[in-house]
Amino acid sequence: MEGGKEVIVGKTKSRGACDLVMRLLALSLTLAAAIILGVDKQTKIVSLVVSPSLPPLDFPATAKWHYLSSFVFFVVSNAIACAYAALSLLISIANKGGNKGLGMFIVILDTLMVALLFSSIGAAGGIGLMGYQGNSHVQWKKVCNVFGKFCNQVAASLVLSLLGAIAFVLLVVVATFRLHKKK
Amino acid sequence: MEGGKEVIVGKTKSRGACDLVMRLLALSLTLAAAIILGVDKQTKIVSLVVSPSLPPLDFPATAKWHYLSSFVFFVVSNAIACAYAALSLLISIANKGGNKGLGMFIVILDTLMVALLFSSIGAAGGIGLMGYQGNSHVQWKKVCNVFGKFCNQVAASLVLSLLGAIAFVLLVVVATFRLHKKK
Repeated sequence: MEGGKEVIVGKTKSRGACDLVMRLLALSLTLAAAIILGVDKQTKIVSLVVSPSLPPLDFPATAKWHYLSSFVFFVVSNAIACAYAALSLLISIANKGGNKGLGMFIVILDTLMVALLFSSIGAAGGIGLMGYQGNSHVQWKKVCNVFGKFCNQVAASLVLSLLGAIAFVLLVVVATFRLHKKK
Repeated sequence: MEGGKEVIVGKTKSRGACDLVMRLLALSLTLAAAIILGVDKQTKIVSLVVSPSLPPLDFPATAKWHYLSSFVFFVVSNAIACAYAALSLLISIANKGGNKGLGMFIVILDTLMVALLFSSIGAAGGIGLMGYQGNSHVQWKKVCNVFGKFCNQVAASLVLSLLGAIAFVLLVVVATFRLHKKK
């Protein structure tokens, strides 16, 4: 009987540790994603040929993350998810197996974070892909051939945010397993 | 004692009915969203001034949903979510309070649908907003001033899909409540 209790306590502890590790992972990944896109800026000298008889005009062109509303949404969403991950991490540590209602509330907020993060990844990904490929039908030219470094940083940020969003999905899945097993 | 049992049975029945109604709602909304964007097409006669001495050239320009990869992703995601909603509706009816493992599996798939739908809404929303506003920094001109009907149909489709995605979020939330209460 005592042995059985120890196994249950051990399992609960390992599940709690898994939850904390994933929350910490989600925190760091969304933080890194927000910072990498938040500091993204590239200036390039672009040559413009006004007339074949004149020498080309050189002028500096700058790409900044806040020029595009999808990237602003992405940075803000990742910042919100990061702040929430930090807060929920503290609550989870303080609540360690205590208030079940609070635990359930966190699962619901985790689900909302999944929705928020995935919508921002979709928005930034859609615009990023357009910048990378361009589209002849709407005559939107690709810009990543000029701002290569900027685009690479966007791609890195997207991958990190996607991993952070997957961590939130796993948190919901693990919580569902836990609630199911406890019945 | 018998009365208490009846109350529990009644609550379980009403929760089951709520689950089925929301699944039906998610099915119809994602189906409508996929169809509305899937049949979206507009042809307009655009005048192009080649030279001030010549009369403007009139040519037909067509906007189709599959010209933009974000819209293709949106239609495919909504079709997947719709097919899954239909399948999970049938499974839920057949499983009525039976296999708990299957119920948990459906909650996990519901969470994945939240991720899929929100990412596609973000992608189509980001591109749709770009078409509506344009962006001077990347020199992508707005196209909704020309293809107004096309853009309105995209907006309607986005709203319906968002409601469908919210239905999936509510399904996860209700399932979490249910699992929590049953403990």
